[in-house]
Amino acid sequence: MSPWKAASPGDPVDAIDTPALVLDLDAFERNLRRMADALAEHPVRLRPHAKSHKCPQIAQRQIALGAVGICCQKVSEAAVFVEAGIADVLVTNQVVGAHKARHLAQLALKARIGVLVDDERQVMEIALAAQAQGVSIDVYVEVDVGGGRCGVAPGEAVARLARRVADQPSLHFAGLQCYHGAAQHRRTPAERVQAIAQASEAARVSREHVQALGLEVGRITGAGTGSFLLERDSGIFNEIQAGSYVFMDRDYGDNERAPQDVAFEHALFVRTAVLSRTLPTRAVVDAGLKASAVDSGPPAVWQRPGLRYLKASDEHGLLEVAPGASLDLGEALMLVPGHCDPTVNLYDELVCVRGGRVEAVWPIAARGALL
Amino acid sequence: MSPWKAASPGDPVDAIDTPALVLDLDAFERNLRRMADALAEHPVRLRPHAKSHKCPQIAQRQIALGAVGICCQKVSEAAVFVEAGIADVLVTNQVVGAHKARHLAQLALKARIGVLVDDERQVMEIALAAQAQGVSIDVYVEVDVGGGRCGVAPGEAVARLARRVADQPSLHFAGLQCYHGAAQHRRTPAERVQAIAQASEAARVSREHVQALGLEVGRITGAGTGSFLLERDSGIFNEIQAGSYVFMDRDYGDNERAPQDVAFEHALFVRTAVLSRTLPTRAVVDAGLKASAVDSGPPAVWQRPGLRYLKASDEHGLLEVAPGASLDLGEALMLVPGHCDPTVNLYDELVCVRGGRVEAVWPIAARGALL
Repeated sequence: MSPWKAASPGDPVDAIDTPALVLDLDAFERNLRRMADALAEHPVRLRPHAKSHKCPQIAQRQIALGAVGICCQKVSEAAVFVEAGIADVLVTNQVVGAHKARHLAQLALKARIGVLVDDERQVMEIALAAQAQGVSIDVYVEVDVGGGRCGVAPGEAVARLARRVADQPSLHFAGLQCYHGAAQHRRTPAERVQAIAQASEAARVSREHVQALGLEVGRITGAGTGSFLLERDSGIFNEIQAGSYVFMDRDYGDNERAPQDVAFEHALFVRTAVLSRTLPTRAVVDAGLKASAVDSGPPAVWQRPGLRYLKASDEHGLLEVAPGASLDLGEALMLVPGHCDPTVNLYDELVCVRGGRVEAVWPIAARGALL
Repeated sequence: MSPWKAASPGDPVDAIDTPALVLDLDAFERNLRRMADALAEHPVRLRPHAKSHKCPQIAQRQIALGAVGICCQKVSEAAVFVEAGIADVLVTNQVVGAHKARHLAQLALKARIGVLVDDERQVMEIALAAQAQGVSIDVYVEVDVGGGRCGVAPGEAVARLARRVADQPSLHFAGLQCYHGAAQHRRTPAERVQAIAQASEAARVSREHVQALGLEVGRITGAGTGSFLLERDSGIFNEIQAGSYVFMDRDYGDNERAPQDVAFEHALFVRTAVLSRTLPTRAVVDAGLKASAVDSGPPAVWQRPGLRYLKASDEHGLLEVAPGASLDLGEALMLVPGHCDPTVNLYDELVCVRGGRVEAVWPIAARGALL
């Protein structure tokens, strides 16, 4: 990592070295509040996804506003948050192999831990590991509600696996994971309505099959920033896993919004500077694909009409400069990342700004926690 | 980062936790040797690019086989290598602003440092910083030889800027940077021949203009893994900056080779395991886009016919399993990353294997060095 830091608390924003990952604290806090308000007085609780931010300081603020805990995507990511004092973590992923199961069970010595399954082998490995540690683990059966990735088919197969979970003394059958990832970035509200209607029906059918075995389905959990109002109002889901709402990336901004959708703001930026300016129509900035992930397309230039980020190479971003737009060598710009999750994962620290000053620098403690 | 490690020296390869970045030491060492052999008895020297590996242990091995030093892409990246004892580092990038110039000049207290310029402002800032530290810095004028990114137009503008450099007592005009990045991945040999012929001519014309001012052009430096034999044989270039040859990614493997091209091998892999296997034609592995960069397309599955990596999400890779291909839940696979540079930048350690065992674990010390 870099032997020096991009900024320290108290620095003026203009002094932040580039490229740096910057959080607009006012916009971020409004996003936190808007999500809490959107779920208040509805029969759903919030378990926000921490894979977006990988930052215990953010998880603590989410919990202070009513979140029951967090989601993580990897066991080692969960370990970072448990170590930071987060008391309730759901690993929204399958965990395979005795080695990973042991790490998972060790976390349950310190916090409430949940995990997903879609195969009997996972159930038995986790049950054995939990038994060896003398802990209980919450296990959710993942249902493939339309995403076509992990999860068993809705209905009878869900019930069979739930039965296996419930039969293990060291496991607690906690409910169903019904996340429709592919629905989050469908561009029109109508497409998202249709996808979540399908997901809700798959969840409902699966719940019926499980209940027919005499098992209680405590939680039906899922949803993301692109669709969570639909799950909230489904009458089926009772837990929301949205994560990106804290930051909002360019790709979420590209979704066409329904009138009732919550107006989350862009709060996460890559601060970058112009390092080469040899042609009137072209500029090169110091944030390339190692500074702003491009899997969902290039970043957007923030509030600078006439500038467009065309193409990223490793450490360069090529900008188109429209006739009449001014942009000087050395000038700083803010970029809105195409996809916040993998962009955050490129940085060790989040530079938090308010009122033109750096207010705090938060470690991205779970950056690179892949295991 | 992860609170535990993927592997330790002495572990069998089968025990490496997933996902992990794995270096096949035998293939890697053959790649090092093949590059040294390809340049031996030619009037060019090797200054390999360290942005590909970000690992001092690899830089040391390149230098032991004759490299004169390394290239870096960022000042903070260079700082990591200087701290590790590398004595000659060229930052193949523009550096703008007094803050970055000071960091650069401080490195020149401990090592021979070079940098690129394409604007007078950069020249003056670096000259001032070098003067303040009492050091001399090698400065190369970057020529836009066809890539359309950084660099001044070939010819007179190059000479003007070289003159400005040579006029600064704290700077040494060291030569011309003539890297054609866009040429590296042109798929046919004929396209690469044409691009490097153009780059060589731009370099030759620029050299003439500089020499006409009575200045010596010590180095014409550039080239990458996709084209370096062309620069070697150009009669113009005398330094080669290839970096990816140590690893070879899927994207370089997709280049159509000319008969004389050097047969570098894939040496870098992402070890991954199947975490979900619910349909005969589909499997999900635990290496998504936070484990293998997708800016140059998805990774390839290594030596497993019938398996194809279709799509990455954050922490999942969706595989297509052909009829008849066998693949079990929990089974490990090796992936060849689509692009090695940003993939390496996702990991803290490189797990080095030979003969079925982990021989060493090397820190990726410059991971995340963006400043």
